[in-house]
Amino acid sequence: MSANSFGTLFKLTSFGESHGKAVGGIIEGVLPNTLIDEDFIQSELDRRRPGQSAITTPRNEEDKVEFLSGIFEGKATGTPIAFVIWNKDQRSKDYGNIADVYRPSHADYTYQSKYGIRDYRGGGRSSARETIARVVAGAIAKLMLQQQGITIQAFTSKVGPIQLDKSYEELDLANTENNIVRCPDTTIADKMINYIDEVRKSKDSVGGIISCVIKNAPVGLGDPVFNKLHATLGQAMLSINAVKGFEYGLGFGATNLKGSEHNDEFYMEGDRVRTKTNRSGGIQGGISNGEDIYFNVAFKPIATILMEQHTVNRNGEEITSTTKGRHDPCVLPRAVPIVEAMAAITIADHILVNKMYR
Amino acid sequence: MSANSFGTLFKLTSFGESHGKAVGGIIEGVLPNTLIDEDFIQSELDRRRPGQSAITTPRNEEDKVEFLSGIFEGKATGTPIAFVIWNKDQRSKDYGNIADVYRPSHADYTYQSKYGIRDYRGGGRSSARETIARVVAGAIAKLMLQQQGITIQAFTSKVGPIQLDKSYEELDLANTENNIVRCPDTTIADKMINYIDEVRKSKDSVGGIISCVIKNAPVGLGDPVFNKLHATLGQAMLSINAVKGFEYGLGFGATNLKGSEHNDEFYMEGDRVRTKTNRSGGIQGGISNGEDIYFNVAFKPIATILMEQHTVNRNGEEITSTTKGRHDPCVLPRAVPIVEAMAAITIADHILVNKMYR
Amino acid sequence: MSANSFGTLFKLTSFGESHGKAVGGIIEGVLPNTLIDEDFIQSELDRRRPGQSAITTPRNEEDKVEFLSGIFEGKATGTPIAFVIWNKDQRSKDYGNIADVYRPSHADYTYQSKYGIRDYRGGGRSSARETIARVVAGAIAKLMLQQQGITIQAFTSKVGPIQLDKSYEELDLANTENNIVRCPDTTIADKMINYIDEVRKSKDSVGGIISCVIKNAPVGLGDPVFNKLHATLGQAMLSINAVKGFEYGLGFGATNLKGSEHNDEFYMEGDRVRTKTNRSGGIQGGISNGEDIYFNVAFKPIATILMEQHTVNRNGEEITSTTKGRHDPCVLPRAVPIVEAMAAITIADHILVNKMYR
Amino acid sequence: MSANSFGTLFKLTSFGESHGKAVGGIIEGVLPNTLIDEDFIQSELDRRRPGQSAITTPRNEEDKVEFLSGIFEGKATGTPIAFVIWNKDQRSKDYGNIADVYRPSHADYTYQSKYGIRDYRGGGRSSARETIARVVAGAIAKLMLQQQGITIQAFTSKVGPIQLDKSYEELDLANTENNIVRCPDTTIADKMINYIDEVRKSKDSVGGIISCVIKNAPVGLGDPVFNKLHATLGQAMLSINAVKGFEYGLGFGATNLKGSEHNDEFYMEGDRVRTKTNRSGGIQGGISNGEDIYFNVAFKPIATILMEQHTVNRNGEEITSTTKGRHDPCVLPRAVPIVEAMAAITIADHILVNKMYR
Repeated sequence: MSANSFGTLFKLTSFGESHGKAVGGIIEGVLPNTLIDEDFIQSELDRRRPGQSAITTPRNEEDKVEFLSGIFEGKATGTPIAFVIWNKDQRSKDYGNIADVYRPSHADYTYQSKYGIRDYRGGGRSSARETIARVVAGAIAKLMLQQQGITIQAFTSKVGPIQLDKSYEELDLANTENNIVRCPDTTIADKMINYIDEVRKSKDSVGGIISCVIKNAPVGLGDPVFNKLHATLGQAMLSINAVKGFEYGLGFGATNLKGSEHNDEFYMEGDRVRTKTNRSGGIQGGISNGEDIYFNVAFKPIATILMEQHTVNRNGEEITSTTKGRHDPCVLPRAVPIVEAMAAITIADHILVNKMYR
Repeated sequence: MSANSFGTLFKLTSFGESHGKAVGGIIEGVLPNTLIDEDFIQSELDRRRPGQSAITTPRNEEDKVEFLSGIFEGKATGTPIAFVIWNKDQRSKDYGNIADVYRPSHADYTYQSKYGIRDYRGGGRSSARETIARVVAGAIAKLMLQQQGITIQAFTSKVGPIQLDKSYEELDLANTENNIVRCPDTTIADKMINYIDEVRKSKDSVGGIISCVIKNAPVGLGDPVFNKLHATLGQAMLSINAVKGFEYGLGFGATNLKGSEHNDEFYMEGDRVRTKTNRSGGIQGGISNGEDIYFNVAFKPIATILMEQHTVNRNGEEITSTTKGRHDPCVLPRAVPIVEAMAAITIADHILVNKMYR
Repeated sequence: MSANSFGTLFKLTSFGESHGKAVGGIIEGVLPNTLIDEDFIQSELDRRRPGQSAITTPRNEEDKVEFLSGIFEGKATGTPIAFVIWNKDQRSKDYGNIADVYRPSHADYTYQSKYGIRDYRGGGRSSARETIARVVAGAIAKLMLQQQGITIQAFTSKVGPIQLDKSYEELDLANTENNIVRCPDTTIADKMINYIDEVRKSKDSVGGIISCVIKNAPVGLGDPVFNKLHATLGQAMLSINAVKGFEYGLGFGATNLKGSEHNDEFYMEGDRVRTKTNRSGGIQGGISNGEDIYFNVAFKPIATILMEQHTVNRNGEEITSTTKGRHDPCVLPRAVPIVEAMAAITIADHILVNKMYR
Repeated sequence: MSANSFGTLFKLTSFGESHGKAVGGIIEGVLPNTLIDEDFIQSELDRRRPGQSAITTPRNEEDKVEFLSGIFEGKATGTPIAFVIWNKDQRSKDYGNIADVYRPSHADYTYQSKYGIRDYRGGGRSSARETIARVVAGAIAKLMLQQQGITIQAFTSKVGPIQLDKSYEELDLANTENNIVRCPDTTIADKMINYIDEVRKSKDSVGGIISCVIKNAPVGLGDPVFNKLHATLGQAMLSINAVKGFEYGLGFGATNLKGSEHNDEFYMEGDRVRTKTNRSGGIQGGISNGEDIYFNVAFKPIATILMEQHTVNRNGEEITSTTKGRHDPCVLPRAVPIVEAMAAITIADHILVNKMYR
């Protein structure tokens, strides 16, 4: 069982609870002699960091990564890279009042039922704080992918009712990081930001969609039949907190089309096989075909809202509860680097597995 | 690497090509003394069988399963259960003309690129014929789940533009098997059947959505963080041929709601913790909460259409190609038991893993 | 859990019971375009076949392999290779009398206790007949290794009290297959054969040691820390029926030496790093160093003896029992190809894993 | 690939280099609510600690374990338990002179060849300092096993030419910890200590054998066919630094016996099935039978000796080299808790896997 691990050869095993001493992980499969650019890794963590903008939680964490092994004189050695990020702004006492409460749509009840014990502080292991480990591993995966020219870019494409009306090809994705909601269309970004702000003021939360594009992936990634590229990408995305759906290529939209409308005809671009259209999303038969890989990830509105709700407690009593604490009204801006990280890990893993065929 | 395997303790490893000698697999984790009801298993295969109705491929295969090991006097012994289904109606010569052609949106190009060789007959390993193995393993998983009262029911909820307008709770799912498209609403089923028939006559294909409901799953299934119940269900579904998307609970629809509209409040039903609503789809924090688990699976229109299309061949020449052979204009009716099978395998696996906590 | 699988990228999953329909397996990781030389594979099976000589069991099985998938026009396609060997000379009725008896030092009692059911015929899954699957996979691994010039040769070095008095370097291993006990020293082979014949006549059994040498393995095989080359080789060997011990290099003999007597000094042979001596057995720090890899495998006298023994039955009654049936007085001659097969699988797997570093 | 992991459900993933910041690991599968007795864990680390006696290396490390996750209010929560042990007495400069030298029978050459880079300080990842992580995981496994009355006791049974002349049943194993060589026979222990002291003075090293006994293991542990109990125990032991061989039950000695001399006859002890003798070592058909499990592990004399030796360097030049630094003349006393730890992890893992059958 590798419920805390993801990947076959490039593999992250993560650990840590929201309000424990630290979160972190062990990364296996980083190719020896890979330059470990700690500044880049930290910059990725900063994109995920709480407190980075007016529309994210005010919990204040530096989230500085400390590497413990696997790196020598700035390079990966091929041995496992362990790392920790210390939890600092813990305020465990904020959570004492929820020790016995099952918050609606949180993991309190299911964890307690499964394990018979839980670290209730801040959701413990079920907290999205665990995704820090993924961002570190994803950043190192990106360092490996960069050497092959592979880029991964995610962006917020929908927040509640507000959504992009252009495809990723019509947008300048370089604008993504220019606004705090990480939407490449500035006008729509402003609307999203205002909407999130309204939601925050009403003590509510809101979900949305993150889209992601992978460019320059080589032909041949993905392993039939159960590890089809989109199946492992799907598991990767669905394992992110608050995710409710995954689709690639035209996704659910493909169900409206006929085969003659959906098929991608091949042509030759010089000596390279290309497709005229890319409704397939760069994956055919579960294997990458060299076109852009793109997909959407649906996030629910997170369960933490600052209103009174009906619920029950560990003693089986019906109660009302009002959550306090510091929370994100909308997780999407901070989830953009997490989506990228999981995509990078998935692609890096498939690349390593594919090497056996060389 | 277990690209041909699915599951941790309850595990299927599948083999076989569309027009090879046989498809089959090895199933591990079947509890000793489980009664292996071969009639039931065969009935599941019959639901998936080609040639079963006017809207499926006329390829004629009996698809009789033959067990080779792991069963003694009608009961599982705890050792691996191997099985084969012999391919009979192979007509390999039908496929000689596609030996060098990359059919649009098929796996021909990607397999050839990845492996440098491929069994081109009928798509070889990329054919959905491989899913026979899943139906056998799924049927055995169902036999294990039945003993705990767990049921899994899938149905066609959308074909092209025609979709159910009721939730699964408003429908009588027992009607599902009463029509050849496997839609529990008879009126809509008729529309779907007519639509598929039109599409077939126009030599085209069409996709749609299969929905699935799992009832009576125990609380506690699913393993944080990467093997969340919906993450493994998602991988399971995305590994089925022609699948483009997966969502559970309200899925992509959840992105339109606020937290106050999406949260499921808890209450007590006797001494059992229940939720008043079930927008979560029976899974919270990646772990089942005892409510119904439900999800949707999006299928593209399959790539095989009987029209002329532009494409290229192995020599890098642009050509036109017209596929011949026997094919399904719409895979959904036959995919219903496949979705159930993968769900059954996933649930059975999580149940076994969960036993370590007892 | 992969108790029926061995290997990470080159992987065998085996199935089958001694007196079921068939034994067989699925092999993953065979490189695409590998020529599958069925004659060679069959010749390996013939080396393991029962009834091959006067000192092996008279059970008569052809042991013809039938491939079901993964091969197209004589070449591996990169998809899983499934195969079966049908059991023919089953004589299940020979075993009716042991349905309820726990034979001394057999697996009857432990299987029954673990699973609550067992296929008692011929030992069921615990029978060495399962190793047929290993020989097939090992033969295919050898085909891959041959392309790199890697050879694997095992031989019987001890039978009861009779043992080789020369090291493998002093012997001509090409003689191994020239006698029925598979010992490269003809004089000692004769003694072994006579000894086995005596043991057979006295209705007893005898064990011994098989030694194995792997030549031309590349530098760098083996994965710290738990998959050290000798650790996976050790698991491979210990998983063979009747094996009680494994040692590599000087093994237990190394415990008599001081470091100054045991260390292998390096020198340069042209531009290649070599060791003057090879007490390490070609493995240092768990990784191959390019020298010969050699090891010993200890086999107990098999439990089946044709004498009356005291034992108990399933009802907890003390009884006496005399085994009938057809059995090997000494398994070593037939185990030689099994040892080679498991070594070949192990080496092939490490070679594939190592490719990620290229 | 899980080269840094051991176990299926109870699983240790280790990290760390001899002279990096820290060594540590992640433990999965610790049953929720297990009391984590940190004093006991520390006492196990103290048994392995360098500098603990006159016959071990004077490197001075406190080896205090710091837990980072998975424990709440002193109990395991079912989430991964991460831990670190900080390296303190590093003296990296001691090792500058070996940056380019391949020390005879060390892992310098093989690591450099495999990875193209290595942390040469103290052997980096190849150092036995990694086994700290195993002792921590083993201690937690022991805490789980104690609840079931299972005990694991290892002891030094041979040092160079000096060995125990009694079986473990004739000895009082409680004496093991009363002397610094960890041999339960005081007279022989004294001889071993004197011998090690002589070897140390002569700047040499010496190997030996550690024996281990597991009592009260339940019937049914071990998973055919590749995860036989002795096969996973064997891999566990062979993965320990400097180990050259593994045997269980009578081991290599069994090769001298006939079946009639080796078989263990069953009898009834009340309603419990027992064997009159236990030559099998408590394992039959790869599955525990409820008798004592016992095995031997052979350790070579470690490669580090303080004499001048011939060798080569990274530039392919033949040189002479004299190792300096702090080293153990004999690793066995400190390896006793490591053998126990790996045995405990192996048994705990098989116990968890076995729960699926309940």
